Amino acid sequence: MPQLQARIHQIQALLKDQHIEALLEVIEQLNIADQAKVLADMPEKQQFEVFSQLQQRSLVLEFMPLPQQLALVIQLPTSELVHVLDAMHSDDFIDLFKALPSALQQQVLPQLSTVSTDVLAQLASYVEGTAGSIMSSNYVTLSPDLNMNEAITALRNLKDNHDTLYLIYIVDEHHHLLGVISLREIIQAHPDAIIQEVMTHDVVSAEVNNDQEIVARTLAHYDFIALPILDDAGRLLGIVTYDDAMDIVEAESTEDILRAGAIAPFEKQSIKTAPILSLYKNRVFWLVILVFGSLLSSFGIANYEDIIEQNIVLVFFLPLLVGSGGNAGSQSATLMVRALATGDVQLKDWFKLIARESLVALCLGLTMAFAVSILGYIRGDHMVALVLAISMTGIVILGCLIGMSLPFILNRLKLDPASASAPLVTSICDATGVVVYLFVASQLLL
Amino acid sequence: MPQLQARIHQIQALLKDQHIEALLEVIEQLNIADQAKVLADMPEKQQFEVFSQLQQRSLVLEFMPLPQQLALVIQLPTSELVHVLDAMHSDDFIDLFKALPSALQQQVLPQLSTVSTDVLAQLASYVEGTAGSIMSSNYVTLSPDLNMNEAITALRNLKDNHDTLYLIYIVDEHHHLLGVISLREIIQAHPDAIIQEVMTHDVVSAEVNNDQEIVARTLAHYDFIALPILDDAGRLLGIVTYDDAMDIVEAESTEDILRAGAIAPFEKQSIKTAPILSLYKNRVFWLVILVFGSLLSSFGIANYEDIIEQNIVLVFFLPLLVGSGGNAGSQSATLMVRALATGDVQLKDWFKLIARESLVALCLGLTMAFAVSILGYIRGDHMVALVLAISMTGIVILGCLIGMSLPFILNRLKLDPASASAPLVTSICDATGVVVYLFVASQLLL
Repeated sequence: MPQLQARIHQIQALLKDQHIEALLEVIEQLNIADQAKVLADMPEKQQFEVFSQLQQRSLVLEFMPLPQQLALVIQLPTSELVHVLDAMHSDDFIDLFKALPSALQQQVLPQLSTVSTDVLAQLASYVEGTAGSIMSSNYVTLSPDLNMNEAITALRNLKDNHDTLYLIYIVDEHHHLLGVISLREIIQAHPDAIIQEVMTHDVVSAEVNNDQEIVARTLAHYDFIALPILDDAGRLLGIVTYDDAMDIVEAESTEDILRAGAIAPFEKQSIKTAPILSLYKNRVFWLVILVFGSLLSSFGIANYEDIIEQNIVLVFFLPLLVGSGGNAGSQSATLMVRALATGDVQLKDWFKLIARESLVALCLGLTMAFAVSILGYIRGDHMVALVLAISMTGIVILGCLIGMSLPFILNRLKLDPASASAPLVTSICDATGVVVYLFVASQLLL
Repeated sequence: MPQLQARIHQIQALLKDQHIEALLEVIEQLNIADQAKVLADMPEKQQFEVFSQLQQRSLVLEFMPLPQQLALVIQLPTSELVHVLDAMHSDDFIDLFKALPSALQQQVLPQLSTVSTDVLAQLASYVEGTAGSIMSSNYVTLSPDLNMNEAITALRNLKDNHDTLYLIYIVDEHHHLLGVISLREIIQAHPDAIIQEVMTHDVVSAEVNNDQEIVARTLAHYDFIALPILDDAGRLLGIVTYDDAMDIVEAESTEDILRAGAIAPFEKQSIKTAPILSLYKNRVFWLVILVFGSLLSSFGIANYEDIIEQNIVLVFFLPLLVGSGGNAGSQSATLMVRALATGDVQLKDWFKLIARESLVALCLGLTMAFAVSILGYIRGDHMVALVLAISMTGIVILGCLIGMSLPFILNRLKLDPASASAPLVTSICDATGVVVYLFVASQLLL
């Protein structure tokens, strides 16, 4: 965004002088995405004033987060709101429309152009997170019997504002998808060639009820610009484009990262603006659950209170031993959760992976055992060093195996493997570690 | 990839019967990405046999991970290797060429077509992770004085295998970038219109030394299909396309997730195939570092051994209290690291965020204090309950503030904020927790 930086100062000066007309002139020259960014950073009052006068305000809206879109459009008079909504791409239009207060929806609905209301009725019914809920109906279709010159003429005369002109879908009279042809193929084929002869017949597509993550991964796998979405009879319902796929991949990664930190993901919110209460709610659940996890460790300790009282030096090494198991375990879980999420690893690979992991865990355990036994000898004696070495090896190996298995178990239970968060794995490994450590100590020191 | 599933059984049957010719026929009908996937899943022996006979083997290679590409091409006779390399897109060609054994590089180099060697000399010099290292030189340029009909004719006659035909870059005779025009604009403008009048003059671009993550975020911000990469004199050197950007976003997320789990990221490796030794090395570093983190907790404990000996019940609650601080802290760090990575939050937002975080932390702390004091009263007495409530509130608040601040501090020190991994934050918060807990206990119980 280097070009944007150059304009920012000019824009800020004009803002300060309340020079709205000159400001509009500068902003209109920016790329749509930058217009949205500049607008988002303005003080609220000027924001609406500028927005309401932008030529391409419908497109600018599409580049803003939903809460901001909403805040702007509800200030528009109804007649203008109808114009703005009618000019948006169908996927963004639907998201915004659904977010409007229902009184406003009722008011606007009869005035929307028929295409929009049709589209709305059709698309609004799909479940959040499916292909249907993110697809756009702004795609181009042609019939299979045109030649390339006729196709180019048809494309030339398109008035509408399509999401992509680069992949053109070929359908029969019932809207069954027959094939796909790229604009590149249309340009490079002989002008008299017929679409049917040039197009790809075996079209890669997704179904309307598929998870949006599958759609994004399919697009990424094939490097396609767009993916057609079909109903179960093979009729074309919409498309999902590469830019939406990129947003999905990013959003799903954020979700996984938050889960890995034991935070319930919150949708379409910035941590700068999310209400304090929802930040609290998304975190307190796991914190309380994990208290019960820690209680496992506590009961482990309670069970061995005698040996602790007699060898208070054991408490000194408790955080270190127990922590190492938790750390090794959360490393394993992190590797596994990510590999499952990117499709690098499937359930069937579990046995092979466990074997590899055991070997890695053994090496890690022995390294750690060596390090900790030196500390044990310095602070205690050779028996303490032995207890530490044996426990550390066992704790690290167990930690790795737990960390590696938990995501698979969750997956088998049809839960999101990303819920095997570092804190959860840590709690379980901690408890295991306490028991292993104090058991080994009680055998060797009593 | 539903279409692929249908063919898999057929392919497996043919593989079992060693029926290579029929196998080739089926595979050739698949999409290139699927050909790569099918090939990757084959036993090694047949893999090479099929690969070496595929018509579009150069393109199939591009969809495979680098180690697999390498394993296949080194089995080819040199003359065939030259053909395969010459037919690849420049960015993938360079990655593969760099990975070849240097003896083979020397052997192949003089036989490559001049374009490839030029490109190689130019591109191989860019630092890994910069725009230069990922850009492709397979872009299309036109001169600004053509009209739309001439432009279409020129595009029609292109023979080469370009990364995109949908954005055409307009350059002067010294290859300075003057503008960009989309194929859509070329098709939809009046046939006699001149490129110069229709093209976008103010082109969004990146510099060759920019970080690849900046390039990916710029593409995502503008929803562009490709981004031109310029040298500091404004000359066009290459392009980066949306599919590369998607790969970068995914790879950077994986890196952040592994860092968050205290694992040094390994490049272009699957955990199924990465050598055991490199898995070990990428993990042992942090595990050992974190031992020293845990030692902080140990010294905290050593300092208060008297009070522990007199109130052994304190040890029972130690994992719980200390763990809660670590959990709350790693939640805060996770939120912060991700928000910094996606650009949702900048350094300047720190003060505002700390204020919000303090409020959330207070609520979390009080909730946890309430829960734990009940447990304390059951297992100990009202004084133990009081110690637990006070310590828990303090520990959770401190944990949150540490977790939130650490990524910012790392960022200021020009380190990757993602290194504020859950285990690192946990270790620091654990030590803080031990001290707070035992200090409060020593004040109230002695």
